[in-house]
Amino acid sequence: MLVEGRHFLPKADPRSLGHKALAVNLSDLAAMGAAPKWVLLALGLPQADEAWLSAFAAGFFALASRYGVDLIGGDTTRAPQVTITITAMGEVPSSVALYRAGARPGDDIWVSGDLGGASLGLVRPEIAEAAKRLNEPEPRLELGERLRGMANAAIDVSDGLAGDLGHILERSRVAAVIEYALIPRHAAFKRIKDPDLERDCVLSGGDDYELIFTALPARRADLEALSRELGLPLTRIGAIQAGEAKLTVLDAKGKAMKVKPAFDHFRK
Amino acid sequence: MLVEGRHFLPKADPRSLGHKALAVNLSDLAAMGAAPKWVLLALGLPQADEAWLSAFAAGFFALASRYGVDLIGGDTTRAPQVTITITAMGEVPSSVALYRAGARPGDDIWVSGDLGGASLGLVRPEIAEAAKRLNEPEPRLELGERLRGMANAAIDVSDGLAGDLGHILERSRVAAVIEYALIPRHAAFKRIKDPDLERDCVLSGGDDYELIFTALPARRADLEALSRELGLPLTRIGAIQAGEAKLTVLDAKGKAMKVKPAFDHFRK
Repeated sequence: MLVEGRHFLPKADPRSLGHKALAVNLSDLAAMGAAPKWVLLALGLPQADEAWLSAFAAGFFALASRYGVDLIGGDTTRAPQVTITITAMGEVPSSVALYRAGARPGDDIWVSGDLGGASLGLVRPEIAEAAKRLNEPEPRLELGERLRGMANAAIDVSDGLAGDLGHILERSRVAAVIEYALIPRHAAFKRIKDPDLERDCVLSGGDDYELIFTALPARRADLEALSRELGLPLTRIGAIQAGEAKLTVLDAKGKAMKVKPAFDHFRK
Repeated sequence: MLVEGRHFLPKADPRSLGHKALAVNLSDLAAMGAAPKWVLLALGLPQADEAWLSAFAAGFFALASRYGVDLIGGDTTRAPQVTITITAMGEVPSSVALYRAGARPGDDIWVSGDLGGASLGLVRPEIAEAAKRLNEPEPRLELGERLRGMANAAIDVSDGLAGDLGHILERSRVAAVIEYALIPRHAAFKRIKDPDLERDCVLSGGDDYELIFTALPARRADLEALSRELGLPLTRIGAIQAGEAKLTVLDAKGKAMKVKPAFDHFRK
């Protein structure tokens, strides 16, 4: 459920919004290794604004048709704010579905693409490439499907690396150590030279919709080959360890860093 | 998608709301002859109010467990108004699924239960039995499943008899004549003696979630037996005719009545 004023600004470009609303739902399918099939769209609108609707639909259906996803139902109603609820359905053989609970001590921890761009786009909307990461995320569906049988656990980055990797740790009942310097990050950070902002965006910024996954070290060569084939960077950033669900992020000197907690919608 | 201030009042009883939010979605399955199986719930809330949530959940899960429906996913987020989006999924053999498009000239038109109670409850909330029809509708799931192979077309009454029967006529490309006096109506109208209000509620009032369906005259005895078996009145109110999608409602003198148009969320 995406709500105007909370998940997007009232003046958000409707075409980007149509794309993003679908993308973030398809990303959940990608994180399970599922092939997207059907989608339902419930739309609450302050008024029937044809130009807005037609731009929203253009963004939505361009992405849907790229992945062969059919809109099979939904609802429209009047609401004080634009409110978008999408249910996406896909298929994956149950034996190779990816879950949060599958990480095992000794697994490598991998991340696709680069992180921090979307949250940078939120605080610095004038940086066009970062704003694009925020407004038009790409669901990693090809990657998700190819990780079937290769990854032990996976999740998409919607709330930030630390928070989402934390979900894998909790559900898998394992610990993790990652090296901050290894985390692939959006190119704009090099120019900006703001280490505190960079750390918060890379470790705790949400909305990147990259995949975090764990895999046996024996899979390294396969994953490097997959990265070349897809033209999508896949980067090893650390390892799963035995222990309580705890994430340790090491700085360049091998010292544990402080990590900002993930966003909580209902925090007081 | 149900939005506070539009589909329900801010002070709506949360237990009733949990029941109704699920009931109106299960009603759509009933109207297709489907057996309900799974449901997803997306909830937007102004704050995390435990008492409210626990009452909402009590109403929701009491109905879900009555029909063996599993909550398999969803979302929660903060929103300025309580906003509830439910996706209900069910199963029905495709050969016997009920559609709006199946009505044929010569079919009888039937309605389950009685009409007008819910909209009466909206304008006269002090009438307890009418308010209950509005706030705690019963999805006609047993009836829907039993109508497989018996009904030619079906729909549930969410926007009012005239509007919803109108959807069958449009999709089936047929006309209909019904007799106003035959329409089963909520018992409270007898006491109220307000013919204009009664007509608007019975013909154009929504939210009753009874089923309207059409069937061959050869099915009359079967349907009367089914009515007795389910303990649910099934009433013949008219017939489908060849012609353009047009509904004629005849009064006691055989004269066509004027019907108030159905509610349109985006009417100016």
